[in-house]
Amino acid sequence: MNERIDGHTILIGLMAYPIRHSMSPTMHNNAFAKLGLNYAYLAFEVTNDNLPQAIDAIRTLEMRGSNISMPNKQKVIPLLDKLDPTAEMVGAVNTIVNDHGTLTGYVTDGTGFMQSLKDENLNIIGEKMTIAGAGGAGTAIAIQAAIDGVKEISIFNRHGASWENAKRNVNIINDRTNCKATLYALEDQSALQKEIKDCTIYCNATGVGMNPLEGQTLVSNPDWFRKDMIVYDIIYSPRTTKLMEVAQAAGVKHVYNGLGMILEQGAEAFKLWTGQNMPVEYIRELLFSD
Amino acid sequence: MNERIDGHTILIGLMAYPIRHSMSPTMHNNAFAKLGLNYAYLAFEVTNDNLPQAIDAIRTLEMRGSNISMPNKQKVIPLLDKLDPTAEMVGAVNTIVNDHGTLTGYVTDGTGFMQSLKDENLNIIGEKMTIAGAGGAGTAIAIQAAIDGVKEISIFNRHGASWENAKRNVNIINDRTNCKATLYALEDQSALQKEIKDCTIYCNATGVGMNPLEGQTLVSNPDWFRKDMIVYDIIYSPRTTKLMEVAQAAGVKHVYNGLGMILEQGAEAFKLWTGQNMPVEYIRELLFSD
Repeated sequence: MNERIDGHTILIGLMAYPIRHSMSPTMHNNAFAKLGLNYAYLAFEVTNDNLPQAIDAIRTLEMRGSNISMPNKQKVIPLLDKLDPTAEMVGAVNTIVNDHGTLTGYVTDGTGFMQSLKDENLNIIGEKMTIAGAGGAGTAIAIQAAIDGVKEISIFNRHGASWENAKRNVNIINDRTNCKATLYALEDQSALQKEIKDCTIYCNATGVGMNPLEGQTLVSNPDWFRKDMIVYDIIYSPRTTKLMEVAQAAGVKHVYNGLGMILEQGAEAFKLWTGQNMPVEYIRELLFSD
Repeated sequence: MNERIDGHTILIGLMAYPIRHSMSPTMHNNAFAKLGLNYAYLAFEVTNDNLPQAIDAIRTLEMRGSNISMPNKQKVIPLLDKLDPTAEMVGAVNTIVNDHGTLTGYVTDGTGFMQSLKDENLNIIGEKMTIAGAGGAGTAIAIQAAIDGVKEISIFNRHGASWENAKRNVNIINDRTNCKATLYALEDQSALQKEIKDCTIYCNATGVGMNPLEGQTLVSNPDWFRKDMIVYDIIYSPRTTKLMEVAQAAGVKHVYNGLGMILEQGAEAFKLWTGQNMPVEYIRELLFSD
């Protein structure tokens, strides 16, 4: 009997579009199998149009929950029964837990990011972060960092689509946490240079560096970096972005792509559903040993 | 990578209550794995109350289909878009196929029964069947046998719950097939003896012989059987019923329990969903080698 699914197996979903190429089903199902947990994690193509019915299906089929990704992370909120306070601050949900028909929304992108730093024995609590981008991932990271005790965050964003969201994030952080957040225009290169030079961690949370902007970077001068800082690109495809190459050329010791965040945001969701720790190193080896 | 589920895996359901102890998930998932088909088959506890929402979920989650079992086999019919002619005659559906949002209902219990006889190289086409029971399984078997060309069917049923259904089945068979069906009261022991003595196959499609009626049988006198006939009990737990013991004591050569029917009704559904033949002998070995 090779197949672990039986009549007792409980379904967990991933609702997004497009979604068929996601690594999450492979990650979670292998983790369930490793720990002998009787769940199956499947991806479903869900858009804003059929999201309400898909959320109904979580209740009807007594699924344990679901991950939620683009384009549903914000639209899902009014369809849930409860919202975790961090998800409320972030204004987005990537994980739903179904407790006997009561659906609670969480966001694990930020906690996943923070945990990935702990995995590397790096501390940014009480330190300063400079982050580019205030879209979904940038928002979750900045707000979680502020909640966790990062002292100061400089947020850079282009004047454009997510500028209003960037302003909102800065206000929420300043109003509701002990962190001091400041918003800068990404076009202000001298401010960007100064804030990077002055921080413990620089994080790229924009799409610059991945397809269709692969090979590009917001920071192309190695002199902007210090060797003792952290440079974190949340992009994981390609595994080494142009930004990471620049940081490595500068001799920066702690340079990371987004794989750690992907793994740990999954592990945080896994813990919410199962109450158990995902075997992160086993999954890392299985998925990312290339 | 042990786990075959990935982002491309398509869900197939089993909607019934109670259902957690069903063998069907083990059967189908092992068959998918064996043939390298990217489906996952999961059981969902669905009653008449949440059946409409569960059928909606087939469409929303773009499931390939579902099995339907008690208590939903009849209630599901008005929720579907199309009905296979045999399912319409039987008045029950155990398999739904979703073709891009169009749901068609089929019943594979009867075809599964007939196929299980072919698996044993037994022919009942043009012959006479005597069957006890006109509930769900008995109805599907009798009507499929009549459609397939069994010449004569004697149906025995208790005066009680399914008597009206037994009358309906006899009428449908006589009106719409070339088979001649006759209804008898199960209380008429001399008729039962005569019709068994006179038939090629005697089938028990009642619950007599399984829990809570385990150890009981409608036919306890071995003299009622002929050695060259078929005695088929659709019960599979216990593997050998009291009826089968009586038939074996009579020296009947072809004595069967319901495992073959279970397997083949699954294989018929498998074919409807995947277009491929279930590896029946592999699954039989895997599930029933005890």
